[in-house]
Amino acid sequence: MQILCALCGKYNKLTMDNIFYTSSENITNNQLQLTGQEARHAAKVLRFNIGDELFASDGKGNVYRTTITSITKSSVLAEIEETHFEPEPNIKKVLAFGAIKKRDRLEFAVEKAVELDAWEICIFDADHSERSRINEERLGSIALSAFKQSKRKWLPDIIIKRSMDEVLEHYLDHQAIVAHVPEESVQPKSLEHNDNLLLIGPEGGFSEREIKLCTERNGQFISLGRNRLRAETAVMAILSQYLFE
Amino acid sequence: MQILCALCGKYNKLTMDNIFYTSSENITNNQLQLTGQEARHAAKVLRFNIGDELFASDGKGNVYRTTITSITKSSVLAEIEETHFEPEPNIKKVLAFGAIKKRDRLEFAVEKAVELDAWEICIFDADHSERSRINEERLGSIALSAFKQSKRKWLPDIIIKRSMDEVLEHYLDHQAIVAHVPEESVQPKSLEHNDNLLLIGPEGGFSEREIKLCTERNGQFISLGRNRLRAETAVMAILSQYLFE
Repeated sequence: MQILCALCGKYNKLTMDNIFYTSSENITNNQLQLTGQEARHAAKVLRFNIGDELFASDGKGNVYRTTITSITKSSVLAEIEETHFEPEPNIKKVLAFGAIKKRDRLEFAVEKAVELDAWEICIFDADHSERSRINEERLGSIALSAFKQSKRKWLPDIIIKRSMDEVLEHYLDHQAIVAHVPEESVQPKSLEHNDNLLLIGPEGGFSEREIKLCTERNGQFISLGRNRLRAETAVMAILSQYLFE
Repeated sequence: MQILCALCGKYNKLTMDNIFYTSSENITNNQLQLTGQEARHAAKVLRFNIGDELFASDGKGNVYRTTITSITKSSVLAEIEETHFEPEPNIKKVLAFGAIKKRDRLEFAVEKAVELDAWEICIFDADHSERSRINEERLGSIALSAFKQSKRKWLPDIIIKRSMDEVLEHYLDHQAIVAHVPEESVQPKSLEHNDNLLLIGPEGGFSEREIKLCTERNGQFISLGRNRLRAETAVMAILSQYLFE
């Protein structure tokens, strides 16, 4: 069976290609509920019906195969037939980057960070960040959409911090890996710790103060090649270095 | 001296941070000319004057330090004081990807491919590409802007092809490296040849026919991790694997 999606304009098969999200509190032992946009998408756009098979994830490692038992445009109830659980990865890559002023580039960075396996995404006001208004709700919805599209099982949280000091304090036990090009920068190697904090500066780079903070934290300084990269490109390049860890 | 750029809204130092482009035909032994948008940017936006130092590149490895001798909003003449030449890299990475229907994502892929060191960018109608109109002039101007921003010395050409068959024929002597996930896919390793053709499929992936063509060309199939990546993300991820080659 193929269904024309009014949003993406494509025919979608009724397979795991359509995976829905619902938060843990909407899930009991044998039933789950989609609400809001997710319910609307299932009911109005993809026109699911009672009896149809539907896949959903809680963004916490669980994927559910379900059968729809009731459907309206604001709520879908489904019986859980099967649960697949993917445990947390041993090696986690938290991405922290200085706020990007241009909205489309900021949103792109978030979307790509989800696709490229960031465990958590932290956006902070770096010393050289230009002031920017961050719409957390919108970024959350972009992350959710990328989570579903990329078939991840864990949905990264988005954390906002006011300075690098706050970031380093929040991730106190993490190995800091800093994209910065002092003389001693090295090419990225395999990750050696379980909890890693990948740090990307804003367009203007890190301040000397921030570099000092990273040095005091025994940060590892790495290079991302010899071209000058935009901030959102550096986000993608650093995560791409660790795709297989 | 600092100059407020009316385009980017930032203060720019009069350094190589502002590098201009002019094609080889506008360069003689001791003089070069900026024309069109480049001249306008220098004269009207950054308000350069006669006697100012100006850096320019021909996108063919040469960077010129010059002194402006004449300036109008349509033409800047400058005397060449010093020339720096960066030879072609030994190892070249041609990026070829299936046309992306959404314009912003296509343009992003081109911009990022320039930043991430693609030697040449080839866009082709893959079997599963949705039909898209490609504005070559606009893509050229995006590539030029990324070339200057990333401080590259070689400006990648953009080549349009109608099928993968045409791509493989055009790059007949290149080692094909194909992002595709059959059973035998491997993690990316160091490049072993001088001329490499990195192939990325469209959103729907490569067709069986295209995979067969790549197999016949002794293509090396590589994986880009376990998440499903959008086409433009795969572009950035594959180039990021070879940042240091």
